[in-house]
Amino acid sequence: MAGNSFGTVFKLTTFGESHGEAIGGVIDGCPAGLAIDIEAIRRDMQRRKPGQSEIVTQRKEEDEVEFLSGIFEGITTGTPIGFVIRNTNQKSRDYSHIKDTYRPSHADFTYDKKYGLRDYRGGGRSSARETACRVVAGAIAKQLLKDIKINAYVSAVGEIQLSKHYSELDFSQIEKNPVRTADPEIAKEMEAYIKEVRKSGDTVGGVISCVLQNVPIGLGEPVFDKLHAELGKAMLSINAVKGFEYGSGFGGSRMKGSEHNDPFEKDGSTKTNFSGGIQGGISNGEDIYFNVAFKPVATIMQKQQTIDSDGNTVEMQGKGRHDPCVVPRAIPIVEAMAALVLADFFLLNRLTKL
Amino acid sequence: MAGNSFGTVFKLTTFGESHGEAIGGVIDGCPAGLAIDIEAIRRDMQRRKPGQSEIVTQRKEEDEVEFLSGIFEGITTGTPIGFVIRNTNQKSRDYSHIKDTYRPSHADFTYDKKYGLRDYRGGGRSSARETACRVVAGAIAKQLLKDIKINAYVSAVGEIQLSKHYSELDFSQIEKNPVRTADPEIAKEMEAYIKEVRKSGDTVGGVISCVLQNVPIGLGEPVFDKLHAELGKAMLSINAVKGFEYGSGFGGSRMKGSEHNDPFEKDGSTKTNFSGGIQGGISNGEDIYFNVAFKPVATIMQKQQTIDSDGNTVEMQGKGRHDPCVVPRAIPIVEAMAALVLADFFLLNRLTKL
Amino acid sequence: MAGNSFGTVFKLTTFGESHGEAIGGVIDGCPAGLAIDIEAIRRDMQRRKPGQSEIVTQRKEEDEVEFLSGIFEGITTGTPIGFVIRNTNQKSRDYSHIKDTYRPSHADFTYDKKYGLRDYRGGGRSSARETACRVVAGAIAKQLLKDIKINAYVSAVGEIQLSKHYSELDFSQIEKNPVRTADPEIAKEMEAYIKEVRKSGDTVGGVISCVLQNVPIGLGEPVFDKLHAELGKAMLSINAVKGFEYGSGFGGSRMKGSEHNDPFEKDGSTKTNFSGGIQGGISNGEDIYFNVAFKPVATIMQKQQTIDSDGNTVEMQGKGRHDPCVVPRAIPIVEAMAALVLADFFLLNRLTKL
Amino acid sequence: MAGNSFGTVFKLTTFGESHGEAIGGVIDGCPAGLAIDIEAIRRDMQRRKPGQSEIVTQRKEEDEVEFLSGIFEGITTGTPIGFVIRNTNQKSRDYSHIKDTYRPSHADFTYDKKYGLRDYRGGGRSSARETACRVVAGAIAKQLLKDIKINAYVSAVGEIQLSKHYSELDFSQIEKNPVRTADPEIAKEMEAYIKEVRKSGDTVGGVISCVLQNVPIGLGEPVFDKLHAELGKAMLSINAVKGFEYGSGFGGSRMKGSEHNDPFEKDGSTKTNFSGGIQGGISNGEDIYFNVAFKPVATIMQKQQTIDSDGNTVEMQGKGRHDPCVVPRAIPIVEAMAALVLADFFLLNRLTKL
Repeated sequence: MAGNSFGTVFKLTTFGESHGEAIGGVIDGCPAGLAIDIEAIRRDMQRRKPGQSEIVTQRKEEDEVEFLSGIFEGITTGTPIGFVIRNTNQKSRDYSHIKDTYRPSHADFTYDKKYGLRDYRGGGRSSARETACRVVAGAIAKQLLKDIKINAYVSAVGEIQLSKHYSELDFSQIEKNPVRTADPEIAKEMEAYIKEVRKSGDTVGGVISCVLQNVPIGLGEPVFDKLHAELGKAMLSINAVKGFEYGSGFGGSRMKGSEHNDPFEKDGSTKTNFSGGIQGGISNGEDIYFNVAFKPVATIMQKQQTIDSDGNTVEMQGKGRHDPCVVPRAIPIVEAMAALVLADFFLLNRLTKL
Repeated sequence: MAGNSFGTVFKLTTFGESHGEAIGGVIDGCPAGLAIDIEAIRRDMQRRKPGQSEIVTQRKEEDEVEFLSGIFEGITTGTPIGFVIRNTNQKSRDYSHIKDTYRPSHADFTYDKKYGLRDYRGGGRSSARETACRVVAGAIAKQLLKDIKINAYVSAVGEIQLSKHYSELDFSQIEKNPVRTADPEIAKEMEAYIKEVRKSGDTVGGVISCVLQNVPIGLGEPVFDKLHAELGKAMLSINAVKGFEYGSGFGGSRMKGSEHNDPFEKDGSTKTNFSGGIQGGISNGEDIYFNVAFKPVATIMQKQQTIDSDGNTVEMQGKGRHDPCVVPRAIPIVEAMAALVLADFFLLNRLTKL
Repeated sequence: MAGNSFGTVFKLTTFGESHGEAIGGVIDGCPAGLAIDIEAIRRDMQRRKPGQSEIVTQRKEEDEVEFLSGIFEGITTGTPIGFVIRNTNQKSRDYSHIKDTYRPSHADFTYDKKYGLRDYRGGGRSSARETACRVVAGAIAKQLLKDIKINAYVSAVGEIQLSKHYSELDFSQIEKNPVRTADPEIAKEMEAYIKEVRKSGDTVGGVISCVLQNVPIGLGEPVFDKLHAELGKAMLSINAVKGFEYGSGFGGSRMKGSEHNDPFEKDGSTKTNFSGGIQGGISNGEDIYFNVAFKPVATIMQKQQTIDSDGNTVEMQGKGRHDPCVVPRAIPIVEAMAALVLADFFLLNRLTKL
Repeated sequence: MAGNSFGTVFKLTTFGESHGEAIGGVIDGCPAGLAIDIEAIRRDMQRRKPGQSEIVTQRKEEDEVEFLSGIFEGITTGTPIGFVIRNTNQKSRDYSHIKDTYRPSHADFTYDKKYGLRDYRGGGRSSARETACRVVAGAIAKQLLKDIKINAYVSAVGEIQLSKHYSELDFSQIEKNPVRTADPEIAKEMEAYIKEVRKSGDTVGGVISCVLQNVPIGLGEPVFDKLHAELGKAMLSINAVKGFEYGSGFGGSRMKGSEHNDPFEKDGSTKTNFSGGIQGGISNGEDIYFNVAFKPVATIMQKQQTIDSDGNTVEMQGKGRHDPCVVPRAIPIVEAMAALVLADFFLLNRLTKL
C-alpha cells in the first residue's frame, strides 16, 4: 500500500533514489509474446534525459536501462520485466548544504516529518529522476498499444500560450524544437523566454497538452476507476503537476448543456467532442485530449531564506544545474503515464464480457 | 478490478443501479471502536437529496439508509459495514423512450458498447444516484477524522464566479443558501441565474471549491499515491467532473519559481501556500484547497436529435425532473470523496514508521 | 486490506454478523452477458442450510437471498452484483450466557483482544453463517465456469475413511445420503457414527475431498498466486479447516522422484497424476483433486470450564442446536470456494498472451 | 494481478529467471527507521545456497545480493527497497537438450501452453532460484519482527520421521547437521538415506515443521485473510509443496470436540494447543506450529521417456547437479515466507482499532 505501484493488471512498481546505487522497476502483467523494440525505449529515454538541449538542465545522466528479466530472445515471456538504471554520475557531489535544510516548496520537510529521516542527496526518492522508470515502462506500454497514437506537446510556458485547437497542429513539429511545442513560431518565443528566465536565475511553469487517438471504445472501469479519473491520477502523480482537465475541462463549467452536448452521427461518432472522448468514464472512440498544469521548478538560482531541521533561519541558494522550465522534458513522462493507463484498461477490458 | 471499490485500507465498495432494487455498499477497514452518529450521516444524505430546494431536481427519493452490519450497540466492531438504500419511487416510470436511444453526452452509448447490454432505466449504474453511497461512507469517514474540517462550496455557476480567496469567506454561510456558496450576495445572483437557465430548458456547469483544514502532516504515499493525485482521482470519479486543480493550480503554471515558492516560518509553517498544503505528495500541515469543474448536466428539456442503437436518427426530449445545475447537490459528494481519501491516508500513515 | 474480499478480478466482498440485520455481499467483476439461474443458486443454498437432515443442526434459517443489482432481465450487466440474506430467526435468542464468556476454541477471545469489543451474539462475524454468502457467489462462479465439473464429497468422519480413489466413486451418490459421501455403504456407517457422537453431546471432525474436472490448461499465476496456493488459501479460510493437500499431498513427501513423476502421453496428458492436475502452479488439463481437513466443532453439549473477560473461571455448556459434525454442510462451501478460485484464474488467464 | 507480488502492506514483488541476467525484487512498505543487519541477510542466503553440504546440489551460485535503494546509512527510509542477485555462473551451460522437451512433473509443459513460449534455460521463472529473493525479503521481515522466534526444521525425509513434539526438541541443533533436523540421531539416519537416494540417481520428498513463538495476540484479518490461510498460501507457493496443516492438522479431523477444545487458563493462555496458536483466523498468543509437505524433486539422474513440443516421444536424463532432497535447503525459505506473512499482519494490525 506504500504507493510505489501503478496499474492493476499492467502494473509498474518502481524503486530508487536520485543518488542511491540505481533506480529501477518491475513491470508485472505485460502479456507474453510482445516483441520489444529496445531502440524505441531508448528514444523515449533520450527525450526525458538531462542535457539534451540548451533550455534544460545541463546535468549529465547516462540513463542506460538494463533489462534483467521477462524478455527472452527479444520477446516478452509473461513473467515480470525487471530493469535498472544505474546512478553513475551522482556519487561525488556534495549535498551537505541541504542535509539539514528544508528547501522551500520541495519535499524535504514533508519527507522528514513523515518518515523521520530522509535520503537528502538530490531529493532522494522525491526527485524527478524516478520518472525515468515511468518512461521505460511507458515505452513498453506504447508497444503493446501499437495502433493508439499518443502525442503530448507543450501548450504553454508561463504566459505564452499555444491557443490553437489540437486539430490545427502538426504533431510532427513537436520533436523539431527543444521546447516540444507543436508550432514552430510559438516555439521560438517560448525558447527565448525560457532562456531569459534562466538568466535571471528563476524558473517558470507551463502546460502540457496530450491527445490520444485511435483509442478503442470501451476502456475505463466505472464507477471509481473511470478512464479520465485514472488519467488524472496518473498525471497528478508526476512531479510538479498542479492541475488536470480533459475535454471541455474548466471551460466546460461555464457552458450550457445545449452547447456542451455532443450530438451523435449515425455511425456513433460525435459531431463535437466536448466530452473529450470519454462518456460515463468509458472511451467512446473519439479523440481523448487533456491538459496538465506544471508549477515552476522550486530550485531557483537565487538566494532564499529558509529553515533548517532545528527551526533556525538559514540562507540558501540553488546549486548545480537545474531546469528553468520542466515541461520540455516532461513530455515523454506525460506520454508514458498515459500509455500505462491505457495499457491497463486495454487489458482489463478483456474481462468485461462473457 | 472492476472499478467499484475506492480506497486501500479504508475501502468502500458500492453497488446498485438507479432503478434496481437498491443501491448500497460495504465499508471494509473502518477501525473498531468508533461511535457512529447516524444523525450526522442523515444530514449529509439530506444535503445530496433531490427535491431539497427550488433549484434542484424535484424528484422524490427517500434515500433512507439501512445499516446491516459492522456496528454493534452504536460502535463499529472492525468488521465490514454493509448498508443499503432502497430505490422506492422509481419503479413505475416508463423508460421505453430511452431504451434504444443513446442520449447525447450520457453514458448510454459507451455502456452498451462496453458491456453489450445495459440497464437503461434512469441511466442504470451510470446514474449519479450511486453517489448517495459515497455520501454515506464519507459521513463515516468524517467521524473518523473528527479534528479535520472539510468545507466545500460552490465557487462558480456558469460565468458567475465567487472570486474571493477562501480565507475571506464565512463557511457558515454555505448551508444558508440553496446554491451552497459562501457569499450571500453571489448566492442570490447564482440562484437567479440557475432559475433562468431552468426556465429555458437548459442546464449550466459550475465549479466547487473545497478546503481541508487541520490535516495532520504526513498524509500521502508517494510516488504514485500522492495525496493530491488521489484527491484528483476521487473528484474526477464523480459524475460530470471535467477538471481538478489544487493549490496554485492552472494559475501556478503561469508563475515564476521566485513567486511560487512558499517560504518557511520558523515553526515549519509557510508564509504563503501556493503548494496547497501538499509538498512532494504529502500534507505539510497547511490548508489543502482545490477546485473541481463540473460540466452542464446532459439532460436538457429541449428537443435534441440523436441516434438509436441501430444508428437511426431519432428526436428526443428530456422527461422528468432534472437538475438545471449539479453543483449545489454535489457539495456533500465532494466532501465525502475528500473524507474517504483522507481517512485512507490517515490510516495508511500508521504504517510509515517503525 | 481488512480481509473481507476474495479474488482479484472476480471479487467477492462479504459483510454481516450471525445475528445482525443481514449478511450479504458484492460480486465485482462478473462479466456481462451471463444468464443467471437463480434456482441453481437456491439449490446450493439448500445444501448448506441448517435443518436439512437429522445429522446437522436443527436451527431454522430461511437463507433467502435477495439480489439488489447487477442483474437485469436475468442477465448480468457487468456492474457489481449486490445481495443480502436477512437474519430472520435469530433476533429473540438470549446470548447473555456468552456475552462475557470466552468459549474454548472459539474466536471470542481473539476477537475481543484484536478489536477491543465484539458482537457476541452467536459468534458474530466469526460465525460460519457468513459462508452462506460464499455459497451464493460460488454458485454464480459455477455458472460462469459451466464446462468445469466441481464435485466435493465427505471422505472421512473421525476415524471412518472412504479410502477408494476418486475415480472409483460414483459422484451421483453424493447427494443421496445426508453425510454427502460418495459410497452408500460408508455413508450409513458415517451417519450412525455422527448420531452416536451427537447423543454423547460431543462433536467430531472430518475430511472433504474435492475433484475439479475439465479445467482448461493454463490457470494459475506463478510465482506467488499458484493455482494450488490460492485453492489452499480458499479452503483454509473456511471455518474449522486445519489442513489442505493436493495431488499426492502429504503422502507424496514419502515417495521417490522415480515413482512420483507423471510420464507424458503423446497428447500431453499424463499417465499418472500425482501432480494433482497442477504443475508449476498452473493447471495442466488433468483432474485437480485435493483434501480439506476439518476439526471437530467447538460447541459441545457438555459442561466445560472456561474463563470470562475478567479472567474468572466459569462453567459453561453449549446451548441450542449445533452440528455434531460440520463436513456434510461444508460440501457446498468447499465447492463454492473452489469455483471462486477457478473463476478468478479463468478470467485472469485472458490477460496472459498478446 | 500477474502473481509476482506477496503481501498487502509489507509487499514483496520479485522478478527474474534462473538463467537471465539477474533475479531480484522490490520490498514496498517496510517502515522507515529499521536498522538493517546485512550480515543476517547473508546468513539466511547461505542457508539456502547450493553447494553448502554433501547432501545438496553441488552447483555453484554466488547469490550475492546488492541493495539498490530504500536503505540510507544503514537505516530503512520508508521508500521501496530494490535489490538484485546476479546470475553469475549460469551463462555457459547448454540447455538445448530441454529446449523442446517437456520434462515430466516440471513446469515446462504448462508454461509453454499458458504463455505460448518460455525461457527454457534451467526452468526459467519456474526455477526455485526465484526463492532466493524471498529469503532476502524474509530476512528483512525477521528484523522487523525482532521479538518473534521463527524456527523451521526437517521433520521427515521419505519414511524417516522425527516424531517428537516440537516442545521436546532443541532448536539449537538444527543448524548443526546438514539435513537441518532438530534431533542429532535422526539427522544421521536422514543424511545416510539422502546419500543412498542420490547414489541411485533418485530423489525423495520430505516434511518441514515450523514453529512461530512470541507472536502477539491479534494477527490475522478474517474472514478471508485468516492468519493460517495466508500462511498456507505462503507455503503452498513454494516450489514442490503439496500440503499444509497447522495445529492439530489432518490428525485433528479424527478427534472429538471434547478432546480437541483448548481449555483456558485464567491468564487467557490455553492448557492445550490443538488450535495451533490461531483461533478464528487470529493469533491468540500461543505457539503457532505447522507442517509443510514437499514432493520429491522432479529432476532425477535416471533415464525417462517423455515428449517434445511436437508430441514426439523422446528419452531424456537429468544433467547437472541437482538436489536429491529439497527440504534441507527449503528451511530458510519456509522461515522467510512465514516472516513475510507475520510482518504483513503485524503492520495491518495497527489499523484495527481507533
